[in-house]
Amino acid sequence: MKKLRVGIEGGAGFAGGELIRLLLGHPRVEIVAATSATFPGQPVFMAHPNLRGRTELAFSRKLDYAALDCAFLAGGHGDAMNNVPAILAQTGPKLRLIDFSGDFRLRDPELYPRWYTRTHKAPQLLRRFAYGLVEMNRAEIRKARWVANPGCFATAAALALGPLAKAGATGTVAVTAVTGSSGSGASPSLITHHPTRHSNLRAYKPFTHQHVPEVEQILHKLAGGPGLRLSLIPVSGPFARGIYAVCQLDLPKGWTEKRVQEAYRGAYAGSSFVRLVPEPPTLNAVVGSNHCDVFVAVSDGRIGVISAIDNLVKGAAGQAVQNLNVMMGWDEGLGLAFAGHYP
Amino acid sequence: MKKLRVGIEGGAGFAGGELIRLLLGHPRVEIVAATSATFPGQPVFMAHPNLRGRTELAFSRKLDYAALDCAFLAGGHGDAMNNVPAILAQTGPKLRLIDFSGDFRLRDPELYPRWYTRTHKAPQLLRRFAYGLVEMNRAEIRKARWVANPGCFATAAALALGPLAKAGATGTVAVTAVTGSSGSGASPSLITHHPTRHSNLRAYKPFTHQHVPEVEQILHKLAGGPGLRLSLIPVSGPFARGIYAVCQLDLPKGWTEKRVQEAYRGAYAGSSFVRLVPEPPTLNAVVGSNHCDVFVAVSDGRIGVISAIDNLVKGAAGQAVQNLNVMMGWDEGLGLAFAGHYP
Amino acid sequence: MKKLRVGIEGGAGFAGGELIRLLLGHPRVEIVAATSATFPGQPVFMAHPNLRGRTELAFSRKLDYAALDCAFLAGGHGDAMNNVPAILAQTGPKLRLIDFSGDFRLRDPELYPRWYTRTHKAPQLLRRFAYGLVEMNRAEIRKARWVANPGCFATAAALALGPLAKAGATGTVAVTAVTGSSGSGASPSLITHHPTRHSNLRAYKPFTHQHVPEVEQILHKLAGGPGLRLSLIPVSGPFARGIYAVCQLDLPKGWTEKRVQEAYRGAYAGSSFVRLVPEPPTLNAVVGSNHCDVFVAVSDGRIGVISAIDNLVKGAAGQAVQNLNVMMGWDEGLGLAFAGHYP
Amino acid sequence: MKKLRVGIEGGAGFAGGELIRLLLGHPRVEIVAATSATFPGQPVFMAHPNLRGRTELAFSRKLDYAALDCAFLAGGHGDAMNNVPAILAQTGPKLRLIDFSGDFRLRDPELYPRWYTRTHKAPQLLRRFAYGLVEMNRAEIRKARWVANPGCFATAAALALGPLAKAGATGTVAVTAVTGSSGSGASPSLITHHPTRHSNLRAYKPFTHQHVPEVEQILHKLAGGPGLRLSLIPVSGPFARGIYAVCQLDLPKGWTEKRVQEAYRGAYAGSSFVRLVPEPPTLNAVVGSNHCDVFVAVSDGRIGVISAIDNLVKGAAGQAVQNLNVMMGWDEGLGLAFAGHYP
Repeated sequence: MKKLRVGIEGGAGFAGGELIRLLLGHPRVEIVAATSATFPGQPVFMAHPNLRGRTELAFSRKLDYAALDCAFLAGGHGDAMNNVPAILAQTGPKLRLIDFSGDFRLRDPELYPRWYTRTHKAPQLLRRFAYGLVEMNRAEIRKARWVANPGCFATAAALALGPLAKAGATGTVAVTAVTGSSGSGASPSLITHHPTRHSNLRAYKPFTHQHVPEVEQILHKLAGGPGLRLSLIPVSGPFARGIYAVCQLDLPKGWTEKRVQEAYRGAYAGSSFVRLVPEPPTLNAVVGSNHCDVFVAVSDGRIGVISAIDNLVKGAAGQAVQNLNVMMGWDEGLGLAFAGHYP
Repeated sequence: MKKLRVGIEGGAGFAGGELIRLLLGHPRVEIVAATSATFPGQPVFMAHPNLRGRTELAFSRKLDYAALDCAFLAGGHGDAMNNVPAILAQTGPKLRLIDFSGDFRLRDPELYPRWYTRTHKAPQLLRRFAYGLVEMNRAEIRKARWVANPGCFATAAALALGPLAKAGATGTVAVTAVTGSSGSGASPSLITHHPTRHSNLRAYKPFTHQHVPEVEQILHKLAGGPGLRLSLIPVSGPFARGIYAVCQLDLPKGWTEKRVQEAYRGAYAGSSFVRLVPEPPTLNAVVGSNHCDVFVAVSDGRIGVISAIDNLVKGAAGQAVQNLNVMMGWDEGLGLAFAGHYP
Repeated sequence: MKKLRVGIEGGAGFAGGELIRLLLGHPRVEIVAATSATFPGQPVFMAHPNLRGRTELAFSRKLDYAALDCAFLAGGHGDAMNNVPAILAQTGPKLRLIDFSGDFRLRDPELYPRWYTRTHKAPQLLRRFAYGLVEMNRAEIRKARWVANPGCFATAAALALGPLAKAGATGTVAVTAVTGSSGSGASPSLITHHPTRHSNLRAYKPFTHQHVPEVEQILHKLAGGPGLRLSLIPVSGPFARGIYAVCQLDLPKGWTEKRVQEAYRGAYAGSSFVRLVPEPPTLNAVVGSNHCDVFVAVSDGRIGVISAIDNLVKGAAGQAVQNLNVMMGWDEGLGLAFAGHYP
Repeated sequence: MKKLRVGIEGGAGFAGGELIRLLLGHPRVEIVAATSATFPGQPVFMAHPNLRGRTELAFSRKLDYAALDCAFLAGGHGDAMNNVPAILAQTGPKLRLIDFSGDFRLRDPELYPRWYTRTHKAPQLLRRFAYGLVEMNRAEIRKARWVANPGCFATAAALALGPLAKAGATGTVAVTAVTGSSGSGASPSLITHHPTRHSNLRAYKPFTHQHVPEVEQILHKLAGGPGLRLSLIPVSGPFARGIYAVCQLDLPKGWTEKRVQEAYRGAYAGSSFVRLVPEPPTLNAVVGSNHCDVFVAVSDGRIGVISAIDNLVKGAAGQAVQNLNVMMGWDEGLGLAFAGHYP
């Protein structure tokens, strides 16, 4: 069987490295090339020492898009909107694209400048990307050639709240979501400096994180109109991998706990990566895997929903592979049917 | 100057050890005895290796309450209500008591059995303990002889929300509060087993944590009636010390950001342990100290308040010393005027 | 193709859980049963939440050895020597056994009571188990039916030092080896209590750890006589997984750096799980995989060798699978040809 | 009583911040100024958020050395040798100096270029600095005006081995020493990037770390000639604070365990910061304090010595204060007589 030829833009970052690791185990994909501006010509294991001995691949400077069936864009935010028009001019629309950045997630062209505080360079393409949250947008992704892979916080929050939106819940949801340091990427910075990140917690961008509008967009799509509003406070946590999202809202008038629980069971009936768990999730049960564990509690007029994902797998590379599988009409779990290690 | 003679019930636990450490540096206090059922007769450093060489104290089996001016009760929850009546029968009301447990925090006798799921053994004493959250209850503590030291989550939440309650805010506050593992005490258990606590997050007791009613009690007292309702989801975090509480609520109708910020400045004008910070607090800036850092954001109709404390200092032993200072009419910061180390 | 029917004694421990995870991905093995005294009748995910949705297996109380082709013994130390004689009486010698404990690692019957401070219950079987350090004992394992899986420290130290022993080096090797907390198992204890294990280091059993004699035994076998002596100080580290062994010895008289490096290249030429690395290894490059990274430095008359493994994979479950593969004549890397995640 | 006027060069680094914290609690010292190139004119709490509310001090661009009684030099390595000649030209020799860098630790002018791989700019001053390891060099420090504060690894290793050197032991000592990330300073870099430092161990500079010669220098001084040789492999550990040094050597011919233990008791009889402990030290018992815990084991012809310090206190700022106390003829423990928190 001929394998799909894929290339990776930005292969030396954490999401890029995880993508290489996952694709090396994917039975229908061949990695043709992965780029790195830092390590051009050097073996992949220079950036990802776990891959030493597992691949002969070396980083390229550039992708030859014409030679690819599919490109994963895992470079910096802003690179995609700058480069995609030229890429498509070269290859035509037959090239499949899965973009990891926030560039093509928001359909409304007014939202990007407001939340990302810069101008969008290719607004004409915004509505041509499918939003790649498979469990909530599978039908659209199946027909798509270009997918905007969701943000890590957005994945955790939208999987926690999607079933409520679908079921017609309304109101403001208070979300506190704690992220591991790998979400900040492979380049050192003050917020990922070990001495001060270790054993610490620090919130940032209260109410203004750029993942908010993509969550509201998919929730509104599921609801068929505005319904839930996201009020997000992200927190930097002292671990390397994972996102843990704690969501709270008022139980809508007239709703029962049964109705809430059934909304979740119904929404995730055919989605094996989402596991509904009877106790609050434990983050380390999902790390290293494409799973999202979701817990729902109803008590005294309040709903609590807690979701846990690995930010680099379900929140990035794993979800990208899942999107590829859906786009290609393959088994959704191809190359992803494994658990992470525990503990 | 004659020093105050104090005893510590439960000196081998983490809060007891921190209390010994703090009192060794307190200029007006002499530790007469500290008890331990596990280490009777053995030097304090058997339980607290940091104190080797810093004190000659050995653990006792029992306190001789008659010989004490003040007793700190840092034993297990339930011990206090079982023992205090007999202690007072022996010493009369002149003995000062500072109780670390939840036994005497709730004034309404119906609340204890509901939240602690057991019967209270000394309900007649409930209204005779002052609630020891100094910044919110200083006047009452000044006149008290017996103080119920607040819970660690309660301290973080009540300091975050007290100024809003005072200012008359109403509504439900969604709180996600992450705690370090030392909050679970010195005895090993599954929830503090290193392999699975490490790099992990896990929520527990969603909406039902026993610290909720003491927070609502003090908030209602400050408001002069019901106003704010607490909706709390606690989370176990992968660090040893600290509580980080993220609170969200709707901005009350007609309120401005200025009014909110002024409520905080006013409430904490005379309270040097609470530091209002212009960015979300960093937990490691308070660990090791009696400080509580509080940040307030108002955005688009929402209020976010984030507070950070050391659960064993401001959330336990440090607050107990602060209560002692206030009760005795001493400088409130005596023995507590230090910063923790950073990083 | 008919799959090999395997059973796991002690499936709820950390090594047992890792073994289940690995075997679920092994193409030629079927897990018939896994026992647990704590979770009998309950799904495997009660002990290993990462496996929820990945297997329908529930724990049994007992294994029916007669129905198995191979049993992995991952129960407590001492269980194996107590039970193996009865098991073999039932099944005859055709049952393959891979024992995780220290019970059958030492061939000299005098060593066990000296290092384990108890009497061996089945000394007559000691010489019938092959020592399962594949890279150093492959030929013997190929012919074996019963394998004693090496200890985690022993694996790290023997892979670090085996090439030197083979090459005829002599002298005392000072080894400091730091281990993650998962090495102490799934039951809570003071040494794995998160508040005090976190951010901490603590040595234990200096010079007297029970893994010393099995390392010396294999080194002496490789050398054809005494040559290297192991002087080991183990250290408990503040992470969940991994062993990092730092070894030092004098460069034997007349040896050159070239001779040392060639000894390693030669010894590991056909062993893909051992990766010789040109810089000191980074522990997180091997965690989650069956790799052992080994670095060798020679400077000013001293040799330094540093090795890194995942204690639950190469130091336990992965090595057990590797032993199975070798015993069965399968590709040594079957079911093990993956990298762990990084970071 | 008039306080000593001190200034701090490099006050925004971790050692500088710890020094400020310690000096704020020192009864005989007044901090006149602390410099920072990054935060000139800004309050100290911009770099050290723990100090918010504890001092009004703001960073200066430069120190006015003529106005100081004592200067602590905690800037980058190399700054001291570049600047001290000019400083002394301005102030004359009356200014007391305590230098945190490696610039003035080595008396032999040939050693610096060999281990630091650069030329020394002020070799004429090398022999005029006392080596500030108080417990091993108290008499010389008492008479000194200028002190070279020891390196963090050097402190841990020299306190572990000094008593053996004094007692005449000979041979090569294998040392593996694990350090917390704060030892790499306040500026982010790849080796302190949280995602990859977390849960990781990585050795570096095997046998070639620049702290080796200062340890051998003080050991040779104590021995009255060459005796012990240091063979050091440093390891980066996944915690913020502390150094844990594990040392091994052969028991010298004819020596008994008693002789070894007595050497340690004798050497540390008058040194309250060094605590001889009967079990291997636990790193978190010294973190936050000026203590060094030392354990000695003798077994089967081998000596094991393990020492634990806080790299920023006993390994930097605390030791600097201790040196000041000794130079000034004050109580050696002034401002340092506290325990760190535990856990």
